[in-house]
Amino acid sequence: MPTSTESDLDRVAERAAAVARAFAATEPRARAAALVAVADALDRNAAELIAIAMRETGLAAPRLIGEVRRTSNQLRLFAEAIVDGAYLDARIDAADPEYVIGPRPDVRRVLEPVGPVLNFAASNFPFAFSVAGGDSAAALAAGCPVVVKAHSGHLELSRRTAEVVVEALAGAGMPDGVFQLIEGQQNGVALLKDDRIRAGAFTGSTHVGRLLADIAATRPRPIPFFGELGSVNPVYATPGAIAAEPELLQGFLTSVAGSAGQLCTKPGFLFVPAAAELGGLAEAAEAVGEHRLLNPGIGRAFEERRGAVLGADGVVVLAEGAVRVDEDGQRFVTPTVVEVSVEALRAQPEALLEESFGPLSVIVRYPDAAALPALHRELFPGNLTSTVHATDAEAGELGDLVEALAETSGRVLFGGWPTGVSVTAAMQHGGPFPATTTDATSVGTAAITRFLRGVAYQNAPAALLPEALRDDNPWGVPQRRSEAGRSSEWGTLTGIH
Amino acid sequence: MPTSTESDLDRVAERAAAVARAFAATEPRARAAALVAVADALDRNAAELIAIAMRETGLAAPRLIGEVRRTSNQLRLFAEAIVDGAYLDARIDAADPEYVIGPRPDVRRVLEPVGPVLNFAASNFPFAFSVAGGDSAAALAAGCPVVVKAHSGHLELSRRTAEVVVEALAGAGMPDGVFQLIEGQQNGVALLKDDRIRAGAFTGSTHVGRLLADIAATRPRPIPFFGELGSVNPVYATPGAIAAEPELLQGFLTSVAGSAGQLCTKPGFLFVPAAAELGGLAEAAEAVGEHRLLNPGIGRAFEERRGAVLGADGVVVLAEGAVRVDEDGQRFVTPTVVEVSVEALRAQPEALLEESFGPLSVIVRYPDAAALPALHRELFPGNLTSTVHATDAEAGELGDLVEALAETSGRVLFGGWPTGVSVTAAMQHGGPFPATTTDATSVGTAAITRFLRGVAYQNAPAALLPEALRDDNPWGVPQRRSEAGRSSEWGTLTGIH
Repeated sequence: MPTSTESDLDRVAERAAAVARAFAATEPRARAAALVAVADALDRNAAELIAIAMRETGLAAPRLIGEVRRTSNQLRLFAEAIVDGAYLDARIDAADPEYVIGPRPDVRRVLEPVGPVLNFAASNFPFAFSVAGGDSAAALAAGCPVVVKAHSGHLELSRRTAEVVVEALAGAGMPDGVFQLIEGQQNGVALLKDDRIRAGAFTGSTHVGRLLADIAATRPRPIPFFGELGSVNPVYATPGAIAAEPELLQGFLTSVAGSAGQLCTKPGFLFVPAAAELGGLAEAAEAVGEHRLLNPGIGRAFEERRGAVLGADGVVVLAEGAVRVDEDGQRFVTPTVVEVSVEALRAQPEALLEESFGPLSVIVRYPDAAALPALHRELFPGNLTSTVHATDAEAGELGDLVEALAETSGRVLFGGWPTGVSVTAAMQHGGPFPATTTDATSVGTAAITRFLRGVAYQNAPAALLPEALRDDNPWGVPQRRSEAGRSSEWGTLTGIH
Repeated sequence: MPTSTESDLDRVAERAAAVARAFAATEPRARAAALVAVADALDRNAAELIAIAMRETGLAAPRLIGEVRRTSNQLRLFAEAIVDGAYLDARIDAADPEYVIGPRPDVRRVLEPVGPVLNFAASNFPFAFSVAGGDSAAALAAGCPVVVKAHSGHLELSRRTAEVVVEALAGAGMPDGVFQLIEGQQNGVALLKDDRIRAGAFTGSTHVGRLLADIAATRPRPIPFFGELGSVNPVYATPGAIAAEPELLQGFLTSVAGSAGQLCTKPGFLFVPAAAELGGLAEAAEAVGEHRLLNPGIGRAFEERRGAVLGADGVVVLAEGAVRVDEDGQRFVTPTVVEVSVEALRAQPEALLEESFGPLSVIVRYPDAAALPALHRELFPGNLTSTVHATDAEAGELGDLVEALAETSGRVLFGGWPTGVSVTAAMQHGGPFPATTTDATSVGTAAITRFLRGVAYQNAPAALLPEALRDDNPWGVPQRRSEAGRSSEWGTLTGIH
């Protein structure tokens, strides 16, 4: 279903809008079953899909096998998250003639789907952040029709995945048109401006993400836009950690080089004490095999960023790495690691502080651990993750730093490395701008709230209430009730301290 | 603390930013006690404050007495909403080496305050949507320092209220600087652009709200902006309701004329069957006494809107009403009610469909009840409320209409009138644009989520975890735990339908 003309696009928008009501009315249990059906279909077709993905993206088989498993289980996790209806946040305030601010009607509130959602697929996760990825899973779970704008880096995979998804949804009894695919950046932009689209989601570069976010915000009728943009994911190692973790540098390098550094959680900076020994790093870097970058565009951008870093003042090369171009313009790379001083970093923000999407990281020697919280706030106002490597004995001295990291990041790690995001109820993958355009998470079950809006019903007859708000509760969802007479108890709050 | 110079503004932003951490760290129980202290202080000073408000706004004593009660109890409701810490949505995923997508670390997520919030006060609710109003209560409850931009229509009241709030917060042990007041539209705009401000809230006109929303969205670092803008709150009366509710027209008029129609939930349209008898409406309108509009600016705007409505083609005047100007430029008004056909309404959207902020409403005769859902979607894409008056016997025929109303409104009422918004857990005061800039609610306890963001902690030592996420749970908040081994149960979901 590749789309190119204006009337094609109009048809896509019309189909999504037309099916929105029927889809919104489906029982969560039925949508959960449909998500599981999509998951099963992905797993069944994994071998074929992975073969296409390898060819189109240059990513290795083990990584893609893991990514399909992650993607199908992400769908199952969303199924589990919606099946009991708790996500609907059903609230029932009983009528109360004695309510403290005046007689209160019967008011009931539930979260309803926002309507058709347009998702822009990412290049670097051809499954987990693409056609059947997290944004699609969350929007479908919420009951929103989905249009995915395919990433040009894996078009064949996108088309084939969309066929698998559409067939599975139909087989599970979901109405026709709840899932559609379009192609082409211009078509994505045109559809984002269409009044029938009610929310957007995106994973990609800061430049493009900001452009789309501005379009969404300045439409005649603005819509929420959830963009996951850039992140450099600083890591701070204490003197204790340097001494206690002999494998620290190897772990760092593995995280930097994995998937050729093309991960939004790649650690772009490692802060170490001034006197830290970095022996073995160069050898470890040289032992990493060549890896193809995702596509020629990403390859060119990486080569440019790497050139800027290597050319900056005060940069000491620890592992130079290499970039090779083949006749198709594809880049093949090995890791680059450099070292700079805090002063050099501060003095050259454009060359050194911007994200390098690829296997490149910057080691910074810090003279004074006490200065790190302020330094972090100054250099890194918005990131997906920040990480601390320290010993338990040092925990008492880290309060200020952790506070700075929590203020400026969606996820704060202790030990380990930020790449390899787990998909769970408690995951937060989203942080202050520019990590994401809003603070919402795009990974984990909390991501569903992006595509829901509250609607209250006042004094509604039972027959006209949504199922989740009815006293006979046919869907059996959790309902939070506030009975009459409760407000007289507020006075007791004066006793609390 | 009136503010006019750039260095004053800089000091305000710096103070808010400086206190943000200490305030964020306060226990919810302590903030709840502080909110109650503010509520008590408002009640203690009510007589003095109401006297100032009457002079500055022209609103009547009974209305203002009720509004202070609403405002202080709104603060108590937020205290109740945060005291148990459920709003923190604490989630704990235990580490799971057997997790289905690969070994899972210990991940814990909590909602943390977004940081300093700038609230633009409204003109029409000098208490409930102003200095100590809903946006301030929600932001303080969330743990965010608040700066209120006072409305020029009640400056003296704003200053005095701010003094009462600041003193009460200090008395309750809250850190210095958590609440500040600024004055002047330009200062509000300048502060909205300040990087230290992390969210904005606004209640007012569509024009100004959209302007501010665009500023917030296009800052170098965009921030969430929660604007409550325009709403015309259509009401649909069925033939059955016209027959069964002899008091319907009187109720309509009371709702239109209350507070001189200067309410965002005023019913701007009443749809009645073509053959409906509207006898008594003119007499009832003439019986309403003259009421001053809030300020000369609102008076001028209302006079202009009223002129446009009365001058539109096909308008039949049912109650002309009057506008009198005194020597200070204040307008004194009585209600205007007109009748138009569906065709006339459609043909003149600028004259007839825009909100008239004042005691004016439009009655529309509909020839065909079955056409109402489509007509509603066409004319009213975004409203705070929509209302149906019908008999129980007609409920079976109303499904399509209610679906259209729920899609386009934050609150759907059955019987009654949209003015007089109750403040409860289930209230939704916010709907599709232009009712609000996002779908978030600005009334009721769900409003707190606007000022919170998720932060995840991975493998954190207990000493560095926020209290709400610790296993020993010192604040005693509800924690949602996901234990190891659970993901193996997802397979059972395939059995659901």
